[in-house]
Formats: sequence, structure tokens, C-alpha cells
Amino acid sequence: MSVVAASAASRAHARAAAESLAAIRDRAPRIHCITNAAASVLTANSLLAVGAVPSLTIAPEEVGDFVSGADALLINLGTLDETRRAAIAIAIEAATKAGIPWVLDPVFADRSPQRLDLAARLCALRPEVIRANEAEIMALAEKAGGEETGAAGAAAKIARDSRACVVLTGPEDRVCDATRAAVLSSGHPLMGKVTAMGCALGALTAAFCAVERDPFLAALEAVLCFGVAGAMAGDKARGPGSFQAELLDALYALDAAAIEKRGRVK
Amino acid sequence: MSVVAASAASRAHARAAAESLAAIRDRAPRIHCITNAAASVLTANSLLAVGAVPSLTIAPEEVGDFVSGADALLINLGTLDETRRAAIAIAIEAATKAGIPWVLDPVFADRSPQRLDLAARLCALRPEVIRANEAEIMALAEKAGGEETGAAGAAAKIARDSRACVVLTGPEDRVCDATRAAVLSSGHPLMGKVTAMGCALGALTAAFCAVERDPFLAALEAVLCFGVAGAMAGDKARGPGSFQAELLDALYALDAAAIEKRGRVK
Amino acid sequence: MSVVAASAASRAHARAAAESLAAIRDRAPRIHCITNAAASVLTANSLLAVGAVPSLTIAPEEVGDFVSGADALLINLGTLDETRRAAIAIAIEAATKAGIPWVLDPVFADRSPQRLDLAARLCALRPEVIRANEAEIMALAEKAGGEETGAAGAAAKIARDSRACVVLTGPEDRVCDATRAAVLSSGHPLMGKVTAMGCALGALTAAFCAVERDPFLAALEAVLCFGVAGAMAGDKARGPGSFQAELLDALYALDAAAIEKRGRVK
Repeated sequence: MSVVAASAASRAHARAAAESLAAIRDRAPRIHCITNAAASVLTANSLLAVGAVPSLTIAPEEVGDFVSGADALLINLGTLDETRRAAIAIAIEAATKAGIPWVLDPVFADRSPQRLDLAARLCALRPEVIRANEAEIMALAEKAGGEETGAAGAAAKIARDSRACVVLTGPEDRVCDATRAAVLSSGHPLMGKVTAMGCALGALTAAFCAVERDPFLAALEAVLCFGVAGAMAGDKARGPGSFQAELLDALYALDAAAIEKRGRVK
Repeated sequence: MSVVAASAASRAHARAAAESLAAIRDRAPRIHCITNAAASVLTANSLLAVGAVPSLTIAPEEVGDFVSGADALLINLGTLDETRRAAIAIAIEAATKAGIPWVLDPVFADRSPQRLDLAARLCALRPEVIRANEAEIMALAEKAGGEETGAAGAAAKIARDSRACVVLTGPEDRVCDATRAAVLSSGHPLMGKVTAMGCALGALTAAFCAVERDPFLAALEAVLCFGVAGAMAGDKARGPGSFQAELLDALYALDAAAIEKRGRVK
Repeated sequence: MSVVAASAASRAHARAAAESLAAIRDRAPRIHCITNAAASVLTANSLLAVGAVPSLTIAPEEVGDFVSGADALLINLGTLDETRRAAIAIAIEAATKAGIPWVLDPVFADRSPQRLDLAARLCALRPEVIRANEAEIMALAEKAGGEETGAAGAAAKIARDSRACVVLTGPEDRVCDATRAAVLSSGHPLMGKVTAMGCALGALTAAFCAVERDPFLAALEAVLCFGVAGAMAGDKARGPGSFQAELLDALYALDAAAIEKRGRVK
């Protein structure tokens, strides 16, 4: 693989990302995740690999206590059931009260009207970051009355309306808020062949929000680190099975040199 | 490992299996899976490895929308709870209405009377394929008043009664419907040392049903591909931990040559 | 890595552990686990790797039947929801009635008052073994009115009060009951970077309880085998992702020679 010289912008972001990563390893922030069953293991292991401490309970009776003691919160809508719906409301209220950042991952918001309704309501509750793929962000923008024809425009609209940073993931990743935008192009095609990769990125974004209070920078750095780890894993993997293990090994080993060498920010 | 010349029947099935696999990779069918917590990750990753698109929600409010938009459905009874029971009924109704094939995996039907009752009721709702191990199929046949003494006879009875194709998995795998039967002998002993292997096969069977409308052929091809991938993984694995990663890598890499070389159909 | 000569005590425990492991592989005990979503796959695969047969259903209607047919039970409090609470009560009653041993893992008892209440009530229901980390055991001891300042003292108090064997896991692992105590120092730092490692140890402890009726010896042997497998895996792993696969491979390959060589019991 040929190595293109990173731009000055890439280098500055790479250095900041490495600093945030060092802060996560140093402070071991607690990240409470309400996430789907298929994502819970990879989510927890991705957080542990970068030095954060995951918790995953969804019991309404206790989720408030867990969130109050956490440093950031992830709300992921995959495999949504009644218990999770109740837990989500309590968790967001606890996060808001405690003043900790939270990240919304509106998984499959495009697949059912009930899910889209819920996702739209949650976008209005001031998440710091919303992470979604093209189908999800287009569905959210359309529901909000947007007439954008492309995903980038839809992401910008959702960012303006919700005053959140939006991370739009795909072959290239786009991070934007009301005034800033960046495009990141690290990663590897095998990331699309392993379940819950996007969910793990959502959780890592919450971890970066715990140490970097500007949601745009936190999200950009999380996407950058995850993409670089993906590129490193892709070099070694022989398929999607070995890729998972390599990704966690890469997240664990990630350092400033690797981020600077492999990260691409435009 | 010595290589026995494949029979003509094996070769024809191997070619058909490779064509179905190519169709899955090309069309990316959506497979909705109501499955157990321990199986969800391996199930989703097995589907992604062959090119299908999994979804796993079990929320009764939205499972109907997910199934209506899917190309096939898997109902797996492991870790059965109230939400899953409700979701199963809605999902099967949606699949029947949409005319999409569904696969039943009556996990642990032999372990509790309630589960056996439910499994028997679901067998009567016209699944295209029922995948079960010996203990499960014997329990189902006995409940149906069968007096068969062996698992093959029990599988034949269930196939006749339910007008479904039955996949009986074990050291050898048996696929039968009311008029046809085949025995497949690929695979690897480590498949029995990793949880949810049979559950993943059930999901792959649903994916093959999405592209091959004869349930007997779809099931036979799924078992063939899974067994060959298992044999390939077994060559490289050093134990059950590395076997899981190797299996997904093998499913991802699977091609006509490998299926023809390693597949055994009698 | 330099190899220190094992003490005579280590050697005797290593031999007993190897015998129990052989008994598990020979008898294939059924271990029913009520555990958290993030732990279920590693738990099931750890049990399969040593030759035990896991089941994981939490449906209140059928959990009693599963436990009655099992050889040991694990109750793990992670991701606690209403269904699991109901299942726990039924499962413990069934285990007590059937006379099979059960192991309690009071995950995150220190994080919410409701969870601590439940954990304390369960400790009083006569589990054979309680497995906890320092924060959990300190919270339980404090709730019980203990004034112990260290975790070892807290573990001893809980062991006396509950008449159970207590396994206190950490950089070193401590196993104690009312009259005996041992410290084990195998394992590997990467064990703290993979989710559900402690949960898997809880399940293995239940498997050892199924073949060794002295809970202190069963727990000590489970900790010893798990620690040795962790040390073996740590030699080969390149990070937490590869560590998981290596650990399962090591559990599968574990034998008397490895346990004797790598096990450390004081």
C-alpha cells in the first residue's frame, strides 16, 4: 500500500487524537452503553481496548445510577425492545442532569416508522453526537421536512436542527456540525463485513467525548482512530473473522505514529 | 488429509451451491433473524461473510416491518423469553403474508415441555426448512405420536407431517423432505466445541432459501457450504477459539473449487 | 519467561485440577447459566472448550426445567432486567430442590443500591461459591455491617456469613471459605482488557463444582485452570482481540503438564 503524505490538517488532528487516546488510557472513563445484543461484546471490547470502562445494563431500575456514575453515555437503537425504550428515557434524563455527553446511534431508523419516530424524538434531546449511515440520515432528514438530495446535505440539516455533531459513516466518513465539516478516508472494506462495527465506533465516540469536550473534535478523533485501526487490521486480516481480532489488537496498540501515518482528514 | 474423489452427485450439488452463493453475494438478501442472545453475533457475521444483510430486532412493535422488508426469516428458539414469543408470532404472520421463506430452529425442544409445545405448533405453520439435532427431532417426532426408533426416521416423519425440508445435524448431516434425502459428511469436530454453530447454519439456510426457491436444494447447499467452510477452518485452527475466526474467513473466501473439492453428498 | 519451581502445594492442586478437568471432559456436565448479554458467548464457549454443555435460557416459564436437568447453575447479575430477576428466583429454587451446586457472580453490586440489595439477598440463599472483584466484595461486606478495611478481610467475612467459598479476583486471585484460604497468581494482564473474563471464570467454577463437591477445591481448581490458560494465551496473543481466541484454544488444550508448570498456588 502506497503512503500518501498526510496534509498539515491531518497531522494536527492526528496529534490531537493521540492526546485524547492517551487521556482515555490515563483516566479510564466509564462509558455506559444502551446497545443492541449483537453489538454488546464488540462494543465492550472496543472500549476496553482503548482503556475505557464499559457498563451495559438496561434495567430501568438501575440504569439511572449507572449513568450518573459514568463519564459518557451511548444510546444505540439496535434490537429495540420495551425494556430498552424505558431505559433510554431514564438514561438520557440522568445524563442531562449529570451534565455528561451522550451519543445517539439511530440504527435502522429507515426500517420501521416507530423506530424513525423514536430516533427523531431523541435527536431533539440534545445529543452531543449523532452517528448514522446514509439510509438512516436520509430518513431522519426527510422526516424533518428536509429536501436535501444527498446524504451530506441531510447530515448538515440534522446537525443544524439538533445542534449536534453528525458522523455520517460510509466508504468515506463525514463529520459535521453547524459550522464545520471534515471528510475522513481511512478504514478498510472488511469493516462492512463484520457486524456492529458502526456500533463500536459510536461507543468509542462517547469515550472521546468524555475527554474532549468539543463534540466535533471528539467525533473526528474517534473516527480517525477507528479508521486507522481498521486500516492496520485490514493489512493483517485474511477475512472478516480474523479482522475482528486484528481490529481490537490494533485499537490496543494504536499510537501517535500510526495515526499520523495512516489517518486521512480532508 | 486424503482427498476422496467427489461423486457426480456431489459435483452437481457443489456447482449449484456455488451458483447460489454467487447469487447471495450479488443480491445481498436481507435476512431477519429472531435468534438467541448467544447466537446473534456469530449469526450476523456468518450472514455478512457470505454477502447477506442481517437484521435482528425482536421488538413486537417493529418486527413486522423488518420481516416485510426482508427476503427470508429465521426463527430460532434459544433463550426464549416473552418478547421473543410475541415477536415470533408476528414475524411468521408477516413472512407468510409477504410470501418469503422461513426457517425454524427448535433449539432445546427436548429440554422443556413448553418449548416442545411451541416448537410443534411452529412446525405446523409451514416453515420451508426445520433444522434440528437428534435430541430435538426425536422429541418432536415422539410428541407427534411417531414410533420411529432412529433420528433419520423421525426426521422423515417431521418432514412428511410439516411438508417442510428437515435438516438433521450431527456427525453426519441429513437433509430430507417428503420424497428426497441426502447425507452430507463435510464439517469438522471443532464445530461442536463452538456455541451457536448450528444457529449460524440455520441463518445461512434462510439466506440460501432467499435465492433458491426449492427448500430441499437450498438447505442442502447451505449445509454443503457450511460443512466445507468448517473443514477448511479445521485445517487451520489450533482450537475452538481460532476456529471461529477461521470459519468466517472460510465462508468469506468460499468458492466453487473449494466446495467441489471438499463437499461430500451421498 | 522464567519458570519458578512450583511448590508442593501447587503440584498437588495442579494434579487435582487436571483430574477434575478430565472428569468434566468425560462426563460433559450440563451447566445452566443466567448471565448477561455481553458474557453469554464467551461463557458458552469457555464451557464448551473444557467439555461442559452450556444452556442459557432466561425465560421464567422454562428455566426451572433447564436447571432441574442441569449439573450446576451460574447466576450472574450483569445486564439485570425484570425477566432475569424472575428467572433467578426460579432457578435458585430449582437448584436447591435438585441439590445441584450454584455459583453467584454479583457483577457491579457496587454500582447501584438495587443491585447490591439483590446480591446480598442471593448471598444468603447458600450459593456454593461467590465470585467477585474487590469493589463488589467491599460493597457486600460494608452492607453486611463489616468493618474490614481490606478486600481479603471483606472476602473472609462474606465467606463466614454466607457459608460459601468466596473467589476474589484481581491482579492476584484469592479463594477462601470459613476455614481455608489460598492465593493464586497465574493469569495475564490482557485478561482485564477483554469483557466477560470474570463471567467466564464464574461459569467454569460451576463446571468444576459439578465434578468436585468441595466448593473450595472446585473454585481453587477453576481459578488455577483459568489462570494457566490465560498465561498460555498471553504468551501468544498480540493484543486483546487475539487473546480471546488464544484463551479458548488454551482451555481446550489444557493438560496436567501445563497446569503443573504454570500454576501458582500459595
